[in-house]
Amino acid sequence: MDPRIREHAETIADHSTDIEEGDNVIVSAPQVASDLVVALHEVLGDRGANPISLDVNDRAKRALLRSREEFETPSHEQALMDETDAFIYLRANENATETGDVNPETTAAYSVAQQPIREERLSKRWCLTQFPAPANAQLAGMSTESYENFVWDAINKDWDAQREFQSEMVEILDPAEEVRIVSGEHTDVRMSVAGNRTLNDYGEKNLPGGEVFTAPVIDSVEGSVFFDKPLYHQGREITEVFLEFERGEVVEHSAGQNEELLTEVLNTDDGARRLGELGIGMNRDIDRFTYNMLFDEKMGNTVHMAVGMAYGECVGEGNEENESAVHVDMIVDMSEDSYIEVDGEVVQRDGTFVFEE
Amino acid sequence: MDPRIREHAETIADHSTDIEEGDNVIVSAPQVASDLVVALHEVLGDRGANPISLDVNDRAKRALLRSREEFETPSHEQALMDETDAFIYLRANENATETGDVNPETTAAYSVAQQPIREERLSKRWCLTQFPAPANAQLAGMSTESYENFVWDAINKDWDAQREFQSEMVEILDPAEEVRIVSGEHTDVRMSVAGNRTLNDYGEKNLPGGEVFTAPVIDSVEGSVFFDKPLYHQGREITEVFLEFERGEVVEHSAGQNEELLTEVLNTDDGARRLGELGIGMNRDIDRFTYNMLFDEKMGNTVHMAVGMAYGECVGEGNEENESAVHVDMIVDMSEDSYIEVDGEVVQRDGTFVFEE
Repeated sequence: MDPRIREHAETIADHSTDIEEGDNVIVSAPQVASDLVVALHEVLGDRGANPISLDVNDRAKRALLRSREEFETPSHEQALMDETDAFIYLRANENATETGDVNPETTAAYSVAQQPIREERLSKRWCLTQFPAPANAQLAGMSTESYENFVWDAINKDWDAQREFQSEMVEILDPAEEVRIVSGEHTDVRMSVAGNRTLNDYGEKNLPGGEVFTAPVIDSVEGSVFFDKPLYHQGREITEVFLEFERGEVVEHSAGQNEELLTEVLNTDDGARRLGELGIGMNRDIDRFTYNMLFDEKMGNTVHMAVGMAYGECVGEGNEENESAVHVDMIVDMSEDSYIEVDGEVVQRDGTFVFEE
Repeated sequence: MDPRIREHAETIADHSTDIEEGDNVIVSAPQVASDLVVALHEVLGDRGANPISLDVNDRAKRALLRSREEFETPSHEQALMDETDAFIYLRANENATETGDVNPETTAAYSVAQQPIREERLSKRWCLTQFPAPANAQLAGMSTESYENFVWDAINKDWDAQREFQSEMVEILDPAEEVRIVSGEHTDVRMSVAGNRTLNDYGEKNLPGGEVFTAPVIDSVEGSVFFDKPLYHQGREITEVFLEFERGEVVEHSAGQNEELLTEVLNTDDGARRLGELGIGMNRDIDRFTYNMLFDEKMGNTVHMAVGMAYGECVGEGNEENESAVHVDMIVDMSEDSYIEVDGEVVQRDGTFVFEE
C-alpha cells in the first residue's frame, strides 16, 4: 500500500478527529476509497476505537431516489449517529455524475429528511476528506498519478505552520464589523460579521483545510456576486452563478448552465436563500482548480460564500443562526481586479494579503 | 443489469423479510455484491423502506483484528441494530481467505464482544443470502457464469412448493423424542429433541433455504460424528472433523487440517462445546458441494450439526437454550451407507426420505 495512504489515515485519526480509546467511530466511504478504509481500520484499531463502516454508494442512492419521492428521518440511522463520537467521511467517486439524473426536488426532499442526522453529525468530532479516485482525477483533467500527488501533498502537510499563517487573517476578521468583497464588474457585496466568530480551518473538519471562515449576520448582506468558478452539485455542473442580495436574501439569481438546479437549491427552505458562510481561501499548496469544493474553496486567491446552513460555532451569542437543509459553496476568483475590505481597510488585493507583502 | 439480480432483490424484500412502508432496513454487503445492493435500493425505495448500507470489508476487518486484541460491544452499532426492523446480509467474497492470518483468539474475542448485537439482529426480520462473486465461484471450482446459474437457480425458485415438500419431514421430527444419525464407520450419534420445535426453512432467514432444523436437548447428545465435508471458518479450511459427545459435551475432537482452529472454536465459551442445531438438508436443486455452508447444508443428502448457539425459536418451554458466541455448522454426507432414525423408525436411508420412495 502507498505509504501516503497510511499517513493520510494517521492524520485523520490523530490530527483531525483526536481518536481515543473507546471512541465509537463511523467510517463512511465509497468502494473506490477502500485502501484508505483499510488503513483507517489499522490505525483506529491501534488507538482502541470501535469503527463501523458505512457504504457510500451513489448507484444505490440514485436507485433509492428514483424509486421514492417522500422521505422520513430513519430512526436507526439517527440512533447510530446519536451514539457516535467521531464521524469520518471519505469522499471519492467512481462516476462524479452518477446522481445527475435524479429529480432535484426528490434530492431536496431527501436532504430535508436527513437534516436532523446531519445536525447531530456536526455536533460530533468529524472529518471530511478526499481519496484520489480516478474519476476525481478525470474531473480535474489530470492523470490519476498526478492527482494522487496533488491530493496527498495538500493533505499530508505541516498543519501547525498553516495554522500560524491563517491566524493573521483570523485576527483581522474575528473582531471586524463589516466585510466588502469586490471583484471585476459584477461582484460588489457587503455584509456584517459583527459579533460572529471567525474560525481557523487547519485540517481538522476539512482535510485538506486552509481557510478562515465566519457567518454573515442574517439580513445584512447587500449587493451582487458573480461566482467565476463552476461547482458540481448533485452530479451536475452549475456555471456562472449570479446572485443579488437585499437585506440578506437572494432577490435575483441566474446561472449559465443548470439554472433550474440552482433555483431548486434556493427554494429548499427559507435559509437556502440566505448566506450561511463567508470563507477566505489561504492554502497556497492548492494551486489549481479541480472541480472539487473541498480543495477549490481553500485556494489562496479565492473567497467563497455558501447559501444555506451556517456553522453554529461561527454564530455569536444574540445573533441569529441561519438554518437550512442545504449548504452550497460557491467561489469567486480574487486573483485579478479584486479586493477584500474589512472595516474600510483593504486586507487582500488581487489575491495577495497585506500581511504577505 | 442481469434480470435475475432484480428478481433476487424482490425475493429478499417480499418473500424473506416482508418489507413494508416505513421499515428501517440495514443492507450489509461487501463491495463485490454492489449490483444487488443497487437493485435492493430500487426495490426497498419502491416499498417505502429506509435503507442504510453497511460495508462488509474483509480487508478492513482483518486490519482491525490485527491491530487490536480486546474488544467491547460498540454502543453505536448496538443502537443502530436496536432501531432496525429488517437486516439483510449479502454474503460474497473478493478473497475467501482474506481473514486467514488473523489470530483465532482475537476473532473469538471480537465475536464475544459482538454477541449482544448478533442477538438483537436475530430478533428482527433478517435474511442471509449469497451474491455469486468470482472468488466464491473459484472456491467452488466453477466458472463465474456457471456459479451464477447455480446460485440464482437455487434462490429464484418456487418456495411454496419447497415448503410443502419439507413439511413432511417437519411433521415427523417436530413431535419426536429421539434422533439417531448413523453414517459409515465413524458416525453414530443419538440425541433427544423432546419438547423442542422443528422449523421449516423455505427461503426466509436463509436464501436459499431448504432444510428443516431443530435444537438438540442440551446434555442429551451421546456418541460420535465424523463430518465428511470440509468447512471454511475465518478464512481457513477445516477438514475431517471428528467429535465425540458425552452427556451433550464434546469430550474428544480432532481434525485433518487446522485442528487448532477447531480447538479455538470449541474453547470460545461453554456453549461452544455443545450442539445448538441439528439440520436436515432437503433442497434437491443444490446438487453440488461448493464450500459454502449456506448452500452445502441444504443439500438433499446431508445432515448438519452446529456447535454453539441454538436458535431460540427451536427451544421449547422448559428446555434450556444453548448460548454461545459461535455457531459453526458441519456436514455429514448421508448419500451412502447411512440412515436417520427417528424414535426407532428409519426416515431416511442413503439420502432418500421414506416419503420420497
